[in-house]
Amino acid sequence: MTDTTSGAPNPPHGYADHKTDHLSRLHKVEGQVRGITRMVADDRYCVDVLTQIGAVTHALQEVALGLLDDHVRHCVRDAVLSDPAEGDAKLDEVALTLRRALRL
Amino acid sequence: MTDTTSGAPNPPHGYADHKTDHLSRLHKVEGQVRGITRMVADDRYCVDVLTQIGAVTHALQEVALGLLDDHVRHCVRDAVLSDPAEGDAKLDEVALTLRRALRL
Amino acid sequence: MTDTTSGAPNPPHGYADHKTDHLSRLHKVEGQVRGITRMVADDRYCVDVLTQIGAVTHALQEVALGLLDDHVRHCVRDAVLSDPAEGDAKLDEVALTLRRALRL
Amino acid sequence: MTDTTSGAPNPPHGYADHKTDHLSRLHKVEGQVRGITRMVADDRYCVDVLTQIGAVTHALQEVALGLLDDHVRHCVRDAVLSDPAEGDAKLDEVALTLRRALRL
Repeated sequence: MTDTTSGAPNPPHGYADHKTDHLSRLHKVEGQVRGITRMVADDRYCVDVLTQIGAVTHALQEVALGLLDDHVRHCVRDAVLSDPAEGDAKLDEVALTLRRALRL
Repeated sequence: MTDTTSGAPNPPHGYADHKTDHLSRLHKVEGQVRGITRMVADDRYCVDVLTQIGAVTHALQEVALGLLDDHVRHCVRDAVLSDPAEGDAKLDEVALTLRRALRL
Repeated sequence: MTDTTSGAPNPPHGYADHKTDHLSRLHKVEGQVRGITRMVADDRYCVDVLTQIGAVTHALQEVALGLLDDHVRHCVRDAVLSDPAEGDAKLDEVALTLRRALRL
Repeated sequence: MTDTTSGAPNPPHGYADHKTDHLSRLHKVEGQVRGITRMVADDRYCVDVLTQIGAVTHALQEVALGLLDDHVRHCVRDAVLSDPAEGDAKLDEVALTLRRALRL
């Protein structure tokens, strides 16, 4: 877990190249979740709410996959190229992350 | 699809009893998504962001399951009890919703 | 959990109408899994094996959804129509089954 | 796609080290699927069948994750170390495989 002490920015990570894309997708997700809250507040039909929740889940998985792809292409690849032990550690971490994501 | 004409509130739906619960869960999800956006803006470590996306996906599925459960216990059950054809239609709709949710 | 004492057949269940369909899908899944075992035994390319595992998972979810649909349309509906308490119990059971299936 | 011409064995792949593990898990899955077929043939209670399908799906995902992990640790890593373009191609392939597995 990296920490974010104010004034001391984190080093740019593997997803730096696509950071704007990830952020704009996440802003869209924020809007979609607010939309769902509004649907429930307005007593909208349950099946329509479920359809929207499905769309948001899908959008979040797209963000996750994009971040994971950037991570493997940069952090993991750099570690593999620079040091076998560090490469192994990064690959272990990715395997664990996927396992948690799939709830295995 | 029910519509929401301003001034004319929708009739309360099957999830009316748990509406407050659903809304407070959704407000929490909104906060979690904003937190993820902030993590990406702050260049936080990719694996930590992925872990948070997993938590939000999980929270959304909890909301979806709660809504579906209320829907089946009220709308679907009422339809089944009042009219066989309407009960069938509601059950078809639930099957289709699950199929879409599972992307089959 | 119903038991299967030899000689005493279980009563036909909600999926009786589509039993032949479910069985033929399951026989197809058995063949697909044997195919995957053969691919691994033959050192086939990992990505091709993963694609096949995805196809089998999909096929199993189709069977599960078909069984669930039959279950709700017959067992659950009959319980709802015959006795409120029994209907509630069946709906609780379906909610729990979905929750387990989604690993919530 | 590698082909399997009889008599000409495929080269060992990234999962060679754990091949025995993968095969024994797959044999277990074969047995589980046959068990499910038998449950349906015997008119066993639908919810019990669904629980078993969930267990098999879980077991298949374990196999998939193990194969993917081996693939990344060997084929992908070797490609990354030997040639940047080949490394990129392997990483593209993994991203596409995950995307298909998650049905995005």
